[in-house]
Amino acid sequence: MKSLGIVTPQSMLFPQPLALQSGATLAGYSLTYETYGTLNAARSNAVLVCHALNASHHVAGMHADVDGAPVSPGWWDNMVGPGKPLDTDRFFVIGVNNLGSCFGSTGPMHPDPATGKPYGASFPVVTVEDWVKAQALLADALGIAQFAAVMGGSLGGMQALAWTLLFPSRLRHCVVIASTPKLSAQNIAFNDVARQAILTDPDFHGGDFYAHGVVPKNGLRVARMVGHITYLSDDDMAEKFGRDLRSGDYQFGFGVDFEIESYLRYQGDKFAGYFDANTYLLITKALDYFDPARAYGGDLTKALAKTEAEFLLVSFQTDWRFAPERSREMVQALVNNRRRVTYAEIDAPHGHDAFLQDDTRYMNVVRSYYQKVWNALQSEGRA
Amino acid sequence: MKSLGIVTPQSMLFPQPLALQSGATLAGYSLTYETYGTLNAARSNAVLVCHALNASHHVAGMHADVDGAPVSPGWWDNMVGPGKPLDTDRFFVIGVNNLGSCFGSTGPMHPDPATGKPYGASFPVVTVEDWVKAQALLADALGIAQFAAVMGGSLGGMQALAWTLLFPSRLRHCVVIASTPKLSAQNIAFNDVARQAILTDPDFHGGDFYAHGVVPKNGLRVARMVGHITYLSDDDMAEKFGRDLRSGDYQFGFGVDFEIESYLRYQGDKFAGYFDANTYLLITKALDYFDPARAYGGDLTKALAKTEAEFLLVSFQTDWRFAPERSREMVQALVNNRRRVTYAEIDAPHGHDAFLQDDTRYMNVVRSYYQKVWNALQSEGRA
Repeated sequence: MKSLGIVTPQSMLFPQPLALQSGATLAGYSLTYETYGTLNAARSNAVLVCHALNASHHVAGMHADVDGAPVSPGWWDNMVGPGKPLDTDRFFVIGVNNLGSCFGSTGPMHPDPATGKPYGASFPVVTVEDWVKAQALLADALGIAQFAAVMGGSLGGMQALAWTLLFPSRLRHCVVIASTPKLSAQNIAFNDVARQAILTDPDFHGGDFYAHGVVPKNGLRVARMVGHITYLSDDDMAEKFGRDLRSGDYQFGFGVDFEIESYLRYQGDKFAGYFDANTYLLITKALDYFDPARAYGGDLTKALAKTEAEFLLVSFQTDWRFAPERSREMVQALVNNRRRVTYAEIDAPHGHDAFLQDDTRYMNVVRSYYQKVWNALQSEGRA
Repeated sequence: MKSLGIVTPQSMLFPQPLALQSGATLAGYSLTYETYGTLNAARSNAVLVCHALNASHHVAGMHADVDGAPVSPGWWDNMVGPGKPLDTDRFFVIGVNNLGSCFGSTGPMHPDPATGKPYGASFPVVTVEDWVKAQALLADALGIAQFAAVMGGSLGGMQALAWTLLFPSRLRHCVVIASTPKLSAQNIAFNDVARQAILTDPDFHGGDFYAHGVVPKNGLRVARMVGHITYLSDDDMAEKFGRDLRSGDYQFGFGVDFEIESYLRYQGDKFAGYFDANTYLLITKALDYFDPARAYGGDLTKALAKTEAEFLLVSFQTDWRFAPERSREMVQALVNNRRRVTYAEIDAPHGHDAFLQDDTRYMNVVRSYYQKVWNALQSEGRA
């Protein structure tokens, strides 16, 4: 199989201000993105892949680590590439880092042009819809009037759904994986625990920790640990870790007893070493606020009436963060609107994280969906 | 209905050292306890009620608040009292605060006789089995050779189960509610997040925060918030809070948006105001370590072979912390040993917290079980 090899991120400057859902305005900003494959002459084969909480524009191919460390693959490299389910020999795929993130696009650690100092806590709260508007401006700049598909998992799936509502005619297919039309009280509760861990870390300094030369690592670490638990299924965690002890016996102290503790602390430490605390706050808020039915008195069918795309939805049976029930709710609302919907519920064991894992049935569902998209482009002579 | 009125806690000093499971020894200690009802002449009607994580010896009746605030009821006052399911007109009920707790019995905030300074982090790690041994010494001192029943919910249920293993002939009935024979990897993971929040709070000072005149409130607050989420069911949280907004609209900041945030932060603040951080660490470790089947290669049937009591087990269908499956596992192991077991699975909506709530079916199950216990005592002429 061919490889995308090392991919070089690109950046585009948007000098005009962006009006946000909050009423605030973001001054000139830049978006960091990557592309894979080739835009065809008909400009009909572009697919936008939206990222979730801690991911980035680096969807596929290999990424030269900034630290000079060995290269690492994109977060959806099993899904996107030559000959892969979203085949970059056919499609021109774009990954874009969202506003407020910490991987290149304008975010809290960048200087506020008004003050010359990092935005920090003054970076405006951005929503899923704000991200989609910024992505649409990038699509304009790249000369893409209509996407063959917009696709995402989890928070990325919310962006795909928001695309069909904000720009119904600008995508032909909408691929929403392991997502939800809104967070539950329990989802919000977990997010708020994570936020409170960060906000009350003395090293957070009200969001201006950059000026103090510190990072609220303890808060970020706890935030990641609690988040990580919700990404895994109870069964999968039992299977992988169970009650296995690190040293064979109880230590009767507060170091590491169980392997699961070691794993989670390691994940927390790693995350705290690279992720920005203000970004974590912003992205969890974007998750909490997403609720397209809210403007329609909670009626999701009414909210989705303006969609024009065809849909693929996928959920995973052991995902208790965004359970299959939430996907079925979207499917029902789309069917109520007589939209074309393909829906797959996969009994993968990996919980919410399953959307990033290799599962043959899951991969085949996505592969055959994109085959259909491709066949349609071919039959129209637009491939 | 009669009332227990204001109950006065008692305290008993145990000057002899207690050998602990860890190999450490606890020097002289005291246990704080309460009793309700009257021990009969045959000394046959005593029931020990064991407490869970944040509860205490104050099981029933009213408690004069130390701050001079209005009185507050015991944590199981709906269950224990005159005419209640565990009827104190019939039974002599004992509630005892566990070692290492922060409500009267010797714990980390008390002076270590060896140094004269608070134990702090040097308080030895105690296990469920250690607690049960200390409770047995209290029973000795009170002249109770055999309990009519030992009873508890959640971590309290683990103690009841441990009683039947350490002192099989000292209880006739064992009542285990919303409990488990061991924590899962996910349970341990949530406990470790809570511990890490406390341990990394700069105000924790390695457990010696008493000397610094501070309390690791931020860590305790986050610990409680994450714990609290696991006590409630997803559905119950959706029912009670849903996505209700505190101020009717999004605030686009990091204050309170959703009612669930307000509720959880309030619970966290309240808890951080009265609970000891070292105690929280100790009690979560006792939970993690409980695993009576461990000495039998994980075979719970073998582990429970030495039990002699009759059993009542109750679980709640929406309890995802200690799900009904865990109770069924215990029931099966007891049935394999040909023990007499009554088991009720209640479809209450309140998650793990259901064991503290009023639910008619649940209360009636416990009531009728104690009626049976009472009838047996009467028919033996020992009531």
